[in-house]
Amino acid sequence: MKLNDAASARYDLASLGEVMLRLDPGDGRVATTRSFQVWEGGGEYNVARGLRRCFGLRTLIVTALVDNPVGRLVEDLMLQGGVDLSWLRWVADDGVGRRARNGLNFTERGFGLRGAVGCSDRGHTAVSQLKAGDVDWERLFAGGVRWFHTGGIFAALSETTPQVAREAMEAARRHGVVVSYDLNYRASLWKGIGGPEKARAVNRELVSLVDVLFGNEEDFTVALGFQVEGVDEHHSALPAESFQKMIGSVRAEFPSLQVVATTLRVARTATRNDRTCQSLTVFGRSASSLSSVRHPPMRRSLPWKRFAQVAFRSSRSR
Amino acid sequence: MKLNDAASARYDLASLGEVMLRLDPGDGRVATTRSFQVWEGGGEYNVARGLRRCFGLRTLIVTALVDNPVGRLVEDLMLQGGVDLSWLRWVADDGVGRRARNGLNFTERGFGLRGAVGCSDRGHTAVSQLKAGDVDWERLFAGGVRWFHTGGIFAALSETTPQVAREAMEAARRHGVVVSYDLNYRASLWKGIGGPEKARAVNRELVSLVDVLFGNEEDFTVALGFQVEGVDEHHSALPAESFQKMIGSVRAEFPSLQVVATTLRVARTATRNDRTCQSLTVFGRSASSLSSVRHPPMRRSLPWKRFAQVAFRSSRSR
Amino acid sequence: MKLNDAASARYDLASLGEVMLRLDPGDGRVATTRSFQVWEGGGEYNVARGLRRCFGLRTLIVTALVDNPVGRLVEDLMLQGGVDLSWLRWVADDGVGRRARNGLNFTERGFGLRGAVGCSDRGHTAVSQLKAGDVDWERLFAGGVRWFHTGGIFAALSETTPQVAREAMEAARRHGVVVSYDLNYRASLWKGIGGPEKARAVNRELVSLVDVLFGNEEDFTVALGFQVEGVDEHHSALPAESFQKMIGSVRAEFPSLQVVATTLRVARTATRNDRTCQSLTVFGRSASSLSSVRHPPMRRSLPWKRFAQVAFRSSRSR
Amino acid sequence: MKLNDAASARYDLASLGEVMLRLDPGDGRVATTRSFQVWEGGGEYNVARGLRRCFGLRTLIVTALVDNPVGRLVEDLMLQGGVDLSWLRWVADDGVGRRARNGLNFTERGFGLRGAVGCSDRGHTAVSQLKAGDVDWERLFAGGVRWFHTGGIFAALSETTPQVAREAMEAARRHGVVVSYDLNYRASLWKGIGGPEKARAVNRELVSLVDVLFGNEEDFTVALGFQVEGVDEHHSALPAESFQKMIGSVRAEFPSLQVVATTLRVARTATRNDRTCQSLTVFGRSASSLSSVRHPPMRRSLPWKRFAQVAFRSSRSR
Amino acid sequence: MKLNDAASARYDLASLGEVMLRLDPGDGRVATTRSFQVWEGGGEYNVARGLRRCFGLRTLIVTALVDNPVGRLVEDLMLQGGVDLSWLRWVADDGVGRRARNGLNFTERGFGLRGAVGCSDRGHTAVSQLKAGDVDWERLFAGGVRWFHTGGIFAALSETTPQVAREAMEAARRHGVVVSYDLNYRASLWKGIGGPEKARAVNRELVSLVDVLFGNEEDFTVALGFQVEGVDEHHSALPAESFQKMIGSVRAEFPSLQVVATTLRVARTATRNDRTCQSLTVFGRSASSLSSVRHPPMRRSLPWKRFAQVAFRSSRSR
Amino acid sequence: MKLNDAASARYDLASLGEVMLRLDPGDGRVATTRSFQVWEGGGEYNVARGLRRCFGLRTLIVTALVDNPVGRLVEDLMLQGGVDLSWLRWVADDGVGRRARNGLNFTERGFGLRGAVGCSDRGHTAVSQLKAGDVDWERLFAGGVRWFHTGGIFAALSETTPQVAREAMEAARRHGVVVSYDLNYRASLWKGIGGPEKARAVNRELVSLVDVLFGNEEDFTVALGFQVEGVDEHHSALPAESFQKMIGSVRAEFPSLQVVATTLRVARTATRNDRTCQSLTVFGRSASSLSSVRHPPMRRSLPWKRFAQVAFRSSRSR
Repeated sequence: MKLNDAASARYDLASLGEVMLRLDPGDGRVATTRSFQVWEGGGEYNVARGLRRCFGLRTLIVTALVDNPVGRLVEDLMLQGGVDLSWLRWVADDGVGRRARNGLNFTERGFGLRGAVGCSDRGHTAVSQLKAGDVDWERLFAGGVRWFHTGGIFAALSETTPQVAREAMEAARRHGVVVSYDLNYRASLWKGIGGPEKARAVNRELVSLVDVLFGNEEDFTVALGFQVEGVDEHHSALPAESFQKMIGSVRAEFPSLQVVATTLRVARTATRNDRTCQSLTVFGRSASSLSSVRHPPMRRSLPWKRFAQVAFRSSRSR
Repeated sequence: MKLNDAASARYDLASLGEVMLRLDPGDGRVATTRSFQVWEGGGEYNVARGLRRCFGLRTLIVTALVDNPVGRLVEDLMLQGGVDLSWLRWVADDGVGRRARNGLNFTERGFGLRGAVGCSDRGHTAVSQLKAGDVDWERLFAGGVRWFHTGGIFAALSETTPQVAREAMEAARRHGVVVSYDLNYRASLWKGIGGPEKARAVNRELVSLVDVLFGNEEDFTVALGFQVEGVDEHHSALPAESFQKMIGSVRAEFPSLQVVATTLRVARTATRNDRTCQSLTVFGRSASSLSSVRHPPMRRSLPWKRFAQVAFRSSRSR
Repeated sequence: MKLNDAASARYDLASLGEVMLRLDPGDGRVATTRSFQVWEGGGEYNVARGLRRCFGLRTLIVTALVDNPVGRLVEDLMLQGGVDLSWLRWVADDGVGRRARNGLNFTERGFGLRGAVGCSDRGHTAVSQLKAGDVDWERLFAGGVRWFHTGGIFAALSETTPQVAREAMEAARRHGVVVSYDLNYRASLWKGIGGPEKARAVNRELVSLVDVLFGNEEDFTVALGFQVEGVDEHHSALPAESFQKMIGSVRAEFPSLQVVATTLRVARTATRNDRTCQSLTVFGRSASSLSSVRHPPMRRSLPWKRFAQVAFRSSRSR
Repeated sequence: MKLNDAASARYDLASLGEVMLRLDPGDGRVATTRSFQVWEGGGEYNVARGLRRCFGLRTLIVTALVDNPVGRLVEDLMLQGGVDLSWLRWVADDGVGRRARNGLNFTERGFGLRGAVGCSDRGHTAVSQLKAGDVDWERLFAGGVRWFHTGGIFAALSETTPQVAREAMEAARRHGVVVSYDLNYRASLWKGIGGPEKARAVNRELVSLVDVLFGNEEDFTVALGFQVEGVDEHHSALPAESFQKMIGSVRAEFPSLQVVATTLRVARTATRNDRTCQSLTVFGRSASSLSSVRHPPMRRSLPWKRFAQVAFRSSRSR
Repeated sequence: MKLNDAASARYDLASLGEVMLRLDPGDGRVATTRSFQVWEGGGEYNVARGLRRCFGLRTLIVTALVDNPVGRLVEDLMLQGGVDLSWLRWVADDGVGRRARNGLNFTERGFGLRGAVGCSDRGHTAVSQLKAGDVDWERLFAGGVRWFHTGGIFAALSETTPQVAREAMEAARRHGVVVSYDLNYRASLWKGIGGPEKARAVNRELVSLVDVLFGNEEDFTVALGFQVEGVDEHHSALPAESFQKMIGSVRAEFPSLQVVATTLRVARTATRNDRTCQSLTVFGRSASSLSSVRHPPMRRSLPWKRFAQVAFRSSRSR
Repeated sequence: MKLNDAASARYDLASLGEVMLRLDPGDGRVATTRSFQVWEGGGEYNVARGLRRCFGLRTLIVTALVDNPVGRLVEDLMLQGGVDLSWLRWVADDGVGRRARNGLNFTERGFGLRGAVGCSDRGHTAVSQLKAGDVDWERLFAGGVRWFHTGGIFAALSETTPQVAREAMEAARRHGVVVSYDLNYRASLWKGIGGPEKARAVNRELVSLVDVLFGNEEDFTVALGFQVEGVDEHHSALPAESFQKMIGSVRAEFPSLQVVATTLRVARTATRNDRTCQSLTVFGRSASSLSSVRHPPMRRSLPWKRFAQVAFRSSRSR
């Protein structure tokens, strides 16, 4: 996998996705708190922010916000995140939030037996109203970009966002930009716009334009329509061989794929499964796993850490 | 004006309106803060809460919330406010906020030259989707209520809320419940659903069912369509006689009105106008002002304070 | 065990006990903090609050507070808790706290080796001065109540509170209201008013009027005077058979008892005993345990959770 | 007025009084807050703390606390205040607060029209149970002290505290220590132990042993029994000549007095009276005022500031 | 005054100066607080930040920081400020702060009579060790810059910083970049490196290369060596004519100056002088004042606001 | 080991060392926080504070601070700590921090995989400029002191501080004061003033005057120049016998040593080594270990706890 030259590129990565204001009650609970801390976040954006602040890469976010104090707060948080905002699209405010809003995400931490409970308030957002033609992808990629990233959350925002993702990917490929996609299936988002069937249709169309694909077991099965033999409905056991076989099918069906990255969790006991053992498996061209690293869990950030270390550095040293 | 007997009534007042989560950055600004304190609030609800916590009256709110952690937080805040929630309508959550949301209100304080800046995020709320027939007003008023209140903010939430207000008022009148209405004109709310013309049409229809009407100069002119002679567009001067004359016209046109309450502000200098002198004028049946009290400004709470003192107490002593 | 009909009852449960202001230094320690968060709490009250907020039952607290800002703060916290306050008795303030006070409870969390340290400041409280005849129990239970709860903390507040508990229980029984009592022995409270002997005398008198009794090993032995064979002074081992035998004696001596609920902790290692294994055992009519559930520990809340699920639901469905 | 030599004295001032934990809801109100900041405070103690931290004098507090986490928190705050705690008396804790407690003071700030509201919770405190003979005053003063201070709050704590003040004053006089007393009348404290009559009797007995007396108009009239001609019950006007005449009577009746210090407030308007103009008047031996300084108000701290500047410095330079 | 074309320039303004971590005890005082909020700040940097966040201009800071967590915190704050950091110079950390440090500024607010007290901890900072040749000014200005700003604080940091300012100004002039300089005299900074004499020598050398000069009365007199007739040492009166005359002398002596901007404060009363009346006077080429605006005081930000409005906008519209 | 008589001594312990302001971002990180809590701390000072607040001993700190608000904040924190400040040396402020500063220590907590990261900003501090002759040790020890403590951090502050430590130790020995020294090697401090070689030279000179020596494995090897057989560079295994043998060599070379105290950690697994098992070993005169206590780890505080219990109590009871 070859990246565009670092010296002549202005950005290492451009990401396309929603950025929400995250409201966090700290040690308390959303339903009884009297204060919230705020952060910004979003599946696709987090990749751009992490690569910028942890690895020093030059990253860019393509998104949209309503131009009101909440939108400006999200901008203020993104500025702190160091992600370039030149391609942030500001949408006029109607003063009430009927026509377009900014996405909000109320999240709390679990404690002991109690699971983490959240509350997404992201209907009618400016970014969900993005449609094909709104972004001048040619100009963006012509400015010099090495990697383009988007994912299944952005594609689930509305009927129009998959088309935006498609035109971005096609433009990226024309400019030799590596394209990655994180399946990141969220049932609640798809529920109102067609459910799992629609998710599969959208994802399959987009994955055909992808170089690097991220996903966990649920992503590959529910959101992309593959089967893993020997997996029951609770995902309590995940035989590595079956999984590797499934990945083989994925690569056979989508020949553009150069890398498939996933994290396999081995459940040990009820409370310790995802705290003690997780391995990243990256399946490259050679049909066998590129690398498999036992690691304390860092969820979705792990594949990106490896990629930042491998893909960007090696291509820079050229 | 005679109120239903206190002893046989279960509630002193029932109010109909939206209750929003208010997010307050304290000494900071919405656009640059890293934390918010939260409160609950809403024009019509504040009347019920104030009468409960400041004057010990038994009050009730008729409203709707989506049943998610944000809605439960608003409930938690209303419980603290002491307002009865038996008639709170819970609407199912879709997990995303596309179909129905809870209203949010980001507000900050001004400082020196800088005005207070807010940001209403109240589109697509559960309460704005209330429609005629959703609330069993007969049962509510049959349970014993002395006063019913709603206002121009609730009426501006959607196409359907004025009809809810109308059926509530009609039911109230059938049970001898005093009906009050606060015009409370908000241009931003009306903008998307018909503008000032629509506001005037809706308000005029509802005011014909009202006993006690609240409003300031803008409310009577823009939102109800009356004229005050000698007032320029900046409302810089407000001749009391012209205002009293206008009130006379209001009462002539709406014979059900028993009391019209307003606050007249006399602008002195640019920065001190509403901090030093404000008078409450209550126009009763006798065509002259019932009482006119010079008072440091307490904005919309002032008329209610007077009413709590006069109306409820006198009727209780009977 | 049959509960009064839910439809015709106004309250599912009425609880009698002290409600204190709890001052909590967060991650810090009481003795060196510079700020406290506040909560309300009390052994008997917590049952009413938990049933209201976790299970949606309609609950009531019978208690007393001094009418000063601290008392009003406790009221504000109880309002948030959703427990009905119609039977809260307000006592006049003397401005100094000599005659009657509100109870305070300074508590901190332990950390590692360091145990949790608290500081109860509950002498001379308004509720401890409640005496027989102060509460019109006939009127309360006539209004429709299904369950009455009090406990050994309330009974230890003063010389007069056991008499209040007794008259409440007698009235409850007259109205077919189920009576429960949590022994909840606190040596510090009894120390100044007669010690364990007095505790046993008071508890034995009250338990004779009880349907459902809660207690742990110390409660049954020290506070009620029974013996568990094979238990040393450190309660390091607690043979289940001996315990069950003791429960048999309890039920033989107090024939009104329909259910005895307890939590048996099995100490494993010094630091993990009460964090990993605790079982709830409910002894019903048939002399054998009704149910025994292995469960991560939730201390005193566990029996109530089971009861809310079983007792209230089953009786509701009738 | 001559002070003991600074070089041979260990302490510049010893103060006798209660030290309470002050709980402060910040910008909020006691009755609705969810958190408190804490400070330590007390009329007589504040003098010792201020002289230590603002003027660098070596000061000592004689007081008593219950040895529990709240008492240790007050100690922690006093350590920060720099006042010597060698003569702090620790009283055993009974675990409940029936026998002896630590004093608490909940105070909030007023805002605009709203006055400051507080709530004293200081009944049954350890310090109020101090009695004659508890403190070895001979040893304390023999160790070298230049000034002894106490006041009318300490004297109002109980039946026994005036006797403690008396024996302290007598011992101080034997060692040539200047004795000061701040009348500081608090109606709520005296109410339960004899009212204004008792206050006057106690104060008159103690003032006969005093060198320097502090008080405002209410102190001299209600708490000491003098009359100021031409003062109505609202203290709306305070003619300086009448006041000076009254001071003359005070000095005639109490010949030990060398200095009488007071602050006269001139009420201008309802809200600005005590914010814009206050003068300190110190009446010395020569029957005329020593100094009269117009000053923005600093309430009771003003006389002490002047004394620290004048009395201690001049005596030090000797 | 003509600015380089906006379209072909990458930055509207580049500023050279120190950026410190500002530690702010909020409502408390530095000497007794237990927590600090943090901000970033610095005389020259604030211009770049304000133009970026208030007026949307593209600004750049040239400065240096030690690469340790404190330096990274200042970076994080500057990212939030939106100022471009491409020319931020990172200096290696020695782990102790002997060789190079980051500047800190502890500041508190005054209250009533009490003045604001601060504490600068900026010795041995990385930026104070900048020397001629460290920055490639040719490359910077060749990239497209319209305005260069620095000032008398940067010039006072060390013996070497004036030389850095000089080479920057010379390079700017070669590229047609407007050069501005804020005299901003700070006695404490100059004290250790030559005092007012040295300040005057350094400032006079640099002002000869300046187009736009900012200063107040103290700056022009103490830090640049001019006289204003009729001004006493307390600056209590500031005759406008004398000031204008002095400005005339400044412009005569420094012919490169195109604009001199100052704020004249008229002292009214002790406490209100700088809160109610301040005027900005900008002296342009024509020897008379370009504009004089009565304005509530905004201290040093006022001239910049006017410039952003006038200079940048007019040149953009060309 | 015999201590001076407690009754005739004014202080139980005098400690010599730097006291820094510790800035703590709580749950956040230094590089991204917006607020810090502050504490005071320093290796040698912590001993004095702990003995005062945990064990009630009378302790004293000899140190120096710049007299500015930051220095006064450190004083305020030390007052709260209860350590006597009579021998705190105040150094004049130059307003900028070029000549002398107060030490700062930014520290954060690690989390999971992430290690704790700190940032020492302690160059050019007032205390590092202490030199022989600055402190009147004769007068200090003549006032009655039982124990003198200092350590390898103080000795590493500058070229002059070892001489201060030496003259203090010599004076202490003349007055029969026990002398203790904590090697506490910090590579970063020594790096700029001679590295490990210099550390060894300084430490060896000082240890020859010491009665009680504290150190861990790195201290004895790197900072004092001894060898422990069988220890690799990662200190992964620490054979107790080799360690004891090394201690024997230490005592042979430094005959003044009466006690050598150390904590041996046994690494079990990567993450649990220092959380589950640590033993304190105190080697006394008899060449074998005085006591060896298995203990959850309390790092450097453990030896002191044992000493407070043993040394001070036994000597007091005499």
